[in-house]
Amino acid sequence: MGQTIRLGIAGLGTVGVGVIKIIRREAAMLTARTGAQITISAISARTRDKDRGVPLKDYAWEDDPVALATRDDVDVFVELMGGSDGPAKAATEAALNAGKDVVTANKAMLAVHGQALAELAESKGCVIRYEAAVAGGIPVIKSLIEGLAGNDITRVMGVMNGTCNYILTRMESAGLPYETVFEEANQLGYLEADPELDVGGIDAGHKLAILASAAFGTQVAFDAMELEGIGRLTIDDIRAAGDMGYRIKLLGVARMTGRGLEQRMSPCLVPATSPLGQLEGGTNMVVLEGNAVDQIVLRGPGAGEGPTASAVMADVCDIARGLRLPVFGQPANTLQAATPAKSVTPAAYYLRMTLLDKPGALAKIATVLGESGISINRMRQYDHDGENAPVLIVTHSTARDALDRALEAMEKTGVIVTAPVAIRIEEV
Amino acid sequence: MGQTIRLGIAGLGTVGVGVIKIIRREAAMLTARTGAQITISAISARTRDKDRGVPLKDYAWEDDPVALATRDDVDVFVELMGGSDGPAKAATEAALNAGKDVVTANKAMLAVHGQALAELAESKGCVIRYEAAVAGGIPVIKSLIEGLAGNDITRVMGVMNGTCNYILTRMESAGLPYETVFEEANQLGYLEADPELDVGGIDAGHKLAILASAAFGTQVAFDAMELEGIGRLTIDDIRAAGDMGYRIKLLGVARMTGRGLEQRMSPCLVPATSPLGQLEGGTNMVVLEGNAVDQIVLRGPGAGEGPTASAVMADVCDIARGLRLPVFGQPANTLQAATPAKSVTPAAYYLRMTLLDKPGALAKIATVLGESGISINRMRQYDHDGENAPVLIVTHSTARDALDRALEAMEKTGVIVTAPVAIRIEEV
Repeated sequence: MGQTIRLGIAGLGTVGVGVIKIIRREAAMLTARTGAQITISAISARTRDKDRGVPLKDYAWEDDPVALATRDDVDVFVELMGGSDGPAKAATEAALNAGKDVVTANKAMLAVHGQALAELAESKGCVIRYEAAVAGGIPVIKSLIEGLAGNDITRVMGVMNGTCNYILTRMESAGLPYETVFEEANQLGYLEADPELDVGGIDAGHKLAILASAAFGTQVAFDAMELEGIGRLTIDDIRAAGDMGYRIKLLGVARMTGRGLEQRMSPCLVPATSPLGQLEGGTNMVVLEGNAVDQIVLRGPGAGEGPTASAVMADVCDIARGLRLPVFGQPANTLQAATPAKSVTPAAYYLRMTLLDKPGALAKIATVLGESGISINRMRQYDHDGENAPVLIVTHSTARDALDRALEAMEKTGVIVTAPVAIRIEEV
Repeated sequence: MGQTIRLGIAGLGTVGVGVIKIIRREAAMLTARTGAQITISAISARTRDKDRGVPLKDYAWEDDPVALATRDDVDVFVELMGGSDGPAKAATEAALNAGKDVVTANKAMLAVHGQALAELAESKGCVIRYEAAVAGGIPVIKSLIEGLAGNDITRVMGVMNGTCNYILTRMESAGLPYETVFEEANQLGYLEADPELDVGGIDAGHKLAILASAAFGTQVAFDAMELEGIGRLTIDDIRAAGDMGYRIKLLGVARMTGRGLEQRMSPCLVPATSPLGQLEGGTNMVVLEGNAVDQIVLRGPGAGEGPTASAVMADVCDIARGLRLPVFGQPANTLQAATPAKSVTPAAYYLRMTLLDKPGALAKIATVLGESGISINRMRQYDHDGENAPVLIVTHSTARDALDRALEAMEKTGVIVTAPVAIRIEEV
């Protein structure tokens, strides 16, 4: 008892305010649990004069987050500014160089600079904790690094961008096209300033890259990720998937294969009755698979003031309790550089395309698939007006490179009107 | 690096063998993650001469688990024998008295003696870890005590007996009566030697009592739990619940109320479309709710060699990594004695009864409910042959004591043929 952990908090948006509220409201509980007083010494944000709904006058103010991070009365630097570079990175590095622990919600910074920051932290005897960076309030980093420490992790999957899942489930339930729901989400303030971070899969890809590092003992390699957003999905895809017993999710999948690390954030079909298939709206879900535990599924709010602050406070409490671990679960200098392996694990695929409505068109496509060694599970030609025939094909399991060769060959058949959309069917 | 953690393992059933397999198979990985060599010094079980499918000759043998627990070459005593008292308790106490940390999968021992053992452990500077005791491979103790440390926990729920969930989902899918499926489960080896531990809700109740202590900072109080098994449920209940959009689960619910700690393990109706409602077969699910995080749902295998050994190894790895916490998340001598509050939180109830088929019978029942202040949401009288009329009633939210008074008054109406079954509808 009696130990005090003094925080310096940079970034007073939703999450920062949530953290301050918890520390003010739950002081006695936090001390009972950690044996320490958790206090706030100083805060920093872009604008000082703004009513944030919580009293801030007890805390010293710093305009410069680097100055905040290195204050003598700060033990733990809480970085809630965001952005892979700029002030967040500068202040994080400054804090570590000054021997301070760091708690951050910054997935972009860790996905891009995670290895260098982890090496710096560990060389200084400091920890970086980032539960809030992945899947909001779900304790997924802790579950993976600590809860499944006895497992050789075989696969990690996740629906980790609530905005994309909101858009997809809303398209389905309201029967609205992508563009309309995108605009709705924008009006509701669900989208990042750069919407491509959400709908392009980048934000979720950052999270998956961090998870993959913690899962497989590899250096974070966001650059090597296969990334595909949800912008090409149509309401017809969602309906067709539904007819066949699937739902479409922006799903991240990371797997260590004999040929290297497979990391993919892309739309996937998953069985409608699986936990992933049943996930609605902005909720996040992470699936962790290991050789001992089989499969664990974690579900919870992926964003928002309370949930994200909950994750930040879990990290702060761990530090206050003296629970200290290497950043990615094993020392950063033992993490292997991952060999990227693009979609080497075979899967069935859903293909949508439009063909010229003339005799033999479908046969040509079927022939191309056959010649590529891809067998067809289901094929469906929809009713249509006019000259063009919408066609859906579900393949049996195939390697992605064989599929890519087939898609290329299809273009040369002369019967394709709109280029095929291929969506992986992930076995979950 | 270079530190060695030497285990003494008592109990070589499924879980013990699973732990030995992981330690043999994953030695390099465990060292990379923990910085320590995890080795086995000695083992103990009831019978020595038995092929357990894993080489045991490298490990010293002890017939007496107490002798094992106190060996000089044992740092951590791994208790996998089970049973609330007897050798498990004696050896655990001996280990703690000898200054050794304990990892256990023993829910019964912790539910009954958790407070005394925690006090002993903490007086000796030792830890007791028990991730495997609750919900098998799901890292629920860690998620609750560490991952949600910043939350005032508001409710904990769980389906934590795979056998009961298997029986209930099998009754539903195959349309078979309880007795038949119970016998099936028995043949399949799913039932404990004393089946009442499973179907009476005792095993799941032990787990809930442990969770409640970790959630609310209270002393484990299994004695104060409301406990009801699944033996009274009929296939008609399951069907009727299904018709109304519900499924029946053996659900544990713990909640801190203004009047004390509510802990209940009993059959409940939950919405069929909720994660709890969708849970099939032997899988476990735990729902954790806090004032910051809102709701987290954890799903995974609740038993079996690999999953349970995974949980044991998580605890061993935490100890090897130097992650040390009070047994229930805060010092045992600060845990409050809980005031038991039996079902004070109001809920809607499902009532099934058989009435004499004569005019006015249903009216009498409705009158009794009205006089007890209980309003009726839905009422249904089923087609029937003969003199007796099966009746289902769903009430609006009511206090349990008002319901109990109404059930008592019903008995005096003279129209009841079989006593009403009342099943709580839990809002999830």
